[in-house]
Amino acid sequence: MIKGTFLDEISHDIPHQNWGRKEWDEDFRHMKQIGIEMVILIRSGYRKWITYSSDVLIKEMGAYQPSIDLVKLFLELSEKYGMLFYFGLYDSGKYWTTGQYEKEVEINKAVIDEVWARYGQYKAFKGWYISQEISRKTNEIVSLYASLGHYCKSVSGGLTTMISPYIDGVKNISQYTSKTSRPNCVSLDQHKKDWDDIFKGIKGAVDIVAFQDGHVEYDELIDFLRINKEIAEANGLECWTNTETFDRDMPIKFLPIKWEKLRLKLELAKQAGIENAITFEFSHFMSPQSAYLQAGHLYNRYQEYVREQSEKQTVICEADKP
Amino acid sequence: MIKGTFLDEISHDIPHQNWGRKEWDEDFRHMKQIGIEMVILIRSGYRKWITYSSDVLIKEMGAYQPSIDLVKLFLELSEKYGMLFYFGLYDSGKYWTTGQYEKEVEINKAVIDEVWARYGQYKAFKGWYISQEISRKTNEIVSLYASLGHYCKSVSGGLTTMISPYIDGVKNISQYTSKTSRPNCVSLDQHKKDWDDIFKGIKGAVDIVAFQDGHVEYDELIDFLRINKEIAEANGLECWTNTETFDRDMPIKFLPIKWEKLRLKLELAKQAGIENAITFEFSHFMSPQSAYLQAGHLYNRYQEYVREQSEKQTVICEADKP
Amino acid sequence: MIKGTFLDEISHDIPHQNWGRKEWDEDFRHMKQIGIEMVILIRSGYRKWITYSSDVLIKEMGAYQPSIDLVKLFLELSEKYGMLFYFGLYDSGKYWTTGQYEKEVEINKAVIDEVWARYGQYKAFKGWYISQEISRKTNEIVSLYASLGHYCKSVSGGLTTMISPYIDGVKNISQYTSKTSRPNCVSLDQHKKDWDDIFKGIKGAVDIVAFQDGHVEYDELIDFLRINKEIAEANGLECWTNTETFDRDMPIKFLPIKWEKLRLKLELAKQAGIENAITFEFSHFMSPQSAYLQAGHLYNRYQEYVREQSEKQTVICEADKP
Repeated sequence: MIKGTFLDEISHDIPHQNWGRKEWDEDFRHMKQIGIEMVILIRSGYRKWITYSSDVLIKEMGAYQPSIDLVKLFLELSEKYGMLFYFGLYDSGKYWTTGQYEKEVEINKAVIDEVWARYGQYKAFKGWYISQEISRKTNEIVSLYASLGHYCKSVSGGLTTMISPYIDGVKNISQYTSKTSRPNCVSLDQHKKDWDDIFKGIKGAVDIVAFQDGHVEYDELIDFLRINKEIAEANGLECWTNTETFDRDMPIKFLPIKWEKLRLKLELAKQAGIENAITFEFSHFMSPQSAYLQAGHLYNRYQEYVREQSEKQTVICEADKP
Repeated sequence: MIKGTFLDEISHDIPHQNWGRKEWDEDFRHMKQIGIEMVILIRSGYRKWITYSSDVLIKEMGAYQPSIDLVKLFLELSEKYGMLFYFGLYDSGKYWTTGQYEKEVEINKAVIDEVWARYGQYKAFKGWYISQEISRKTNEIVSLYASLGHYCKSVSGGLTTMISPYIDGVKNISQYTSKTSRPNCVSLDQHKKDWDDIFKGIKGAVDIVAFQDGHVEYDELIDFLRINKEIAEANGLECWTNTETFDRDMPIKFLPIKWEKLRLKLELAKQAGIENAITFEFSHFMSPQSAYLQAGHLYNRYQEYVREQSEKQTVICEADKP
Repeated sequence: MIKGTFLDEISHDIPHQNWGRKEWDEDFRHMKQIGIEMVILIRSGYRKWITYSSDVLIKEMGAYQPSIDLVKLFLELSEKYGMLFYFGLYDSGKYWTTGQYEKEVEINKAVIDEVWARYGQYKAFKGWYISQEISRKTNEIVSLYASLGHYCKSVSGGLTTMISPYIDGVKNISQYTSKTSRPNCVSLDQHKKDWDDIFKGIKGAVDIVAFQDGHVEYDELIDFLRINKEIAEANGLECWTNTETFDRDMPIKFLPIKWEKLRLKLELAKQAGIENAITFEFSHFMSPQSAYLQAGHLYNRYQEYVREQSEKQTVICEADKP
């Protein structure tokens, strides 16, 4: 089921919980408890806000000096709890969104060098997350992914690389409008064509693709999941799902998802043959210590479900015995 | 005062709390504690999301199989705590909103049959709630209400039926815009005329009308409450108030209402001679275990008020003694 | 650091917490604990909602009778905890926003008289807050501030008066739109010119100006802080900062700010030579008992910071010893 979660500590849109080391330690314990084995720092920085005291980003981007080294903290906790840590690249919030792809690559190469030199010795450091999230194909994004993926691998001895794109569906809508859906969106065919092209271009540079599962109607999801898996595997990528644990259908953007919706999405992924899920994200939307108390109840519902599933599994295995 | 609450488990717009049986049991206990005697399932289903494993809705509407039978749970808890249970009809979210009223009636008749056969033996099953909420008169809505109300009664031996319309006031505005008010709204006269017509058409089919009290300015409320009571009673319906416990004036849609606002609305209802109130709704906006902690404080303020009122009452009664 | 907080009990836009005396007592204790020495009632009334049973406002404005005397409660708690209390004037929500400045002044003079007669004997009553918040200069606002400031002083034997304007920056945007920024905003020069004029006009009537610090980009803040201090002091006003503890960058309006942002703003204020900060506001966004649990964590982070700063200070002082 859910084996990984993002850590959204430089957030675009989710209000911050203001946790210290004590709360983070407790949260890793909660994650472990429900089977989460990997954590993915969603981005190491966004514009001027950064997760570690980066000489590169302070000098080149004028980033603000953070008061805590979150990369170190998360690596230490990953080692303490036996989790894999994926490092999310820097998102300038300006270069790649205004056509300056090369600058986005260049600043990230310096970040990758710096981070690997500083944190590469941690055993928990197991992969890279390319944080520039996209939905539709452009030639530039393909080469951005390819350049960054290859560079991560070349520096780190071939560690795993991951992306988590979204589908340009009915719920792909700015979090800064109050609407929750829109009329025009990508067709299944166009999505397939776009992503088949992208995968061809990033093959070898990116190992895992985990599409966000919240931008299409629940009804449409199964078809997209199947297509995603088909074209990813045809191009040699592993296909996971990023099963979102927040609710995109509500006027408050964003609170924890209704358990029935999460359950449906997990079962659709299973039906599509997708075995691995990560989620965006545990600490706000699923944690017993989340500021959103609905999250703790979601944690309980999910645990009951996992238990129920594993009991079913046991029964099936028993039945299989000669 | 507040003697009933909706149960908003298939919600349009209020994020879900992800409660299990334990939390629901506790919540019924909290309700009972402040004098709530009836619970109204706001709708048994909306589009594909349903509260019980309905063969009808799974087959006809492609509804998703729920993981829990909420109708059974709520009936059991109603019996445990001595509450009356009202069953909310199915809202297709498409037929009646696009002119296909007959289809809305037809699917609901099948739901009514199914539900009565399955749950009619529960002693707590005491009424029906027609969940299609409207504000202005159309001929079709009158016959939808009339058909469904009569059908509920005919199947169940005449159990009580209820509706809870809204007033087309300044705060009648989509929860998916960020505004909180709008310029054009219904006049008192037009409202009176519309609803007098509607009541004439649904007389005998609907027993109780409880208008939502949150769509007009606090200043205007008393006039609407008086009109509502006057025309409802003139047509043989009981007039209750649905006193909303969430705040319509805030940018976050929706959090618990300020106690002073709720108190004012309750006192205005009393002034208008309306004796019974239900609320939308206890579990998010008034419960000590709500994810919105303001709700627990509202619970305390309301309890203090009830105590204070009953002490006043005692003093008055004592004074009346010879 | 933060030595004062607003009390936002008649709120425009922040959902109410529904606290009673017990919670308020506890909150003053929490404030005191982190060094808060003054509380500022943000407004004594807005339109028909009022904080104390004002004969003036009930008669003249048709205000609703409140169920609790908040002014008395806050004065009592201020005395209990040794805090200074500032009384926020009445905001009609209509006169001064539609050009009827004289009416706004007139009703407030009656409020000032009433309040001073009723509560002036409390030792904690130490100042007045002129609650009409503005950003750009108009002649009428200058005379409104001047009239009200002088009147407060004349009635109360010269107690301190305070205003808290905002900067017409990129984040000056209605809380009722879902956007968080806008293209056109005031230039530094225009801001300087406007406010230099305003200060000239309100000199002697207003003692302290504490600009809200959340309407400009973090990058721009230092320049505005410096200008504010320069022109305020040139005109004989004390310049404080109103460091907002809620986050203006998020789709949910408004939840507690990320600690790193608050820390940055406090350090920028220090750099600009501003020594005193108030905040909007403690009870929702920084209190351990806030309904927003992020607030309690912000409280902890802030306390750690204060401790860390004072340890640094001690080290410096020790080093200075001969």
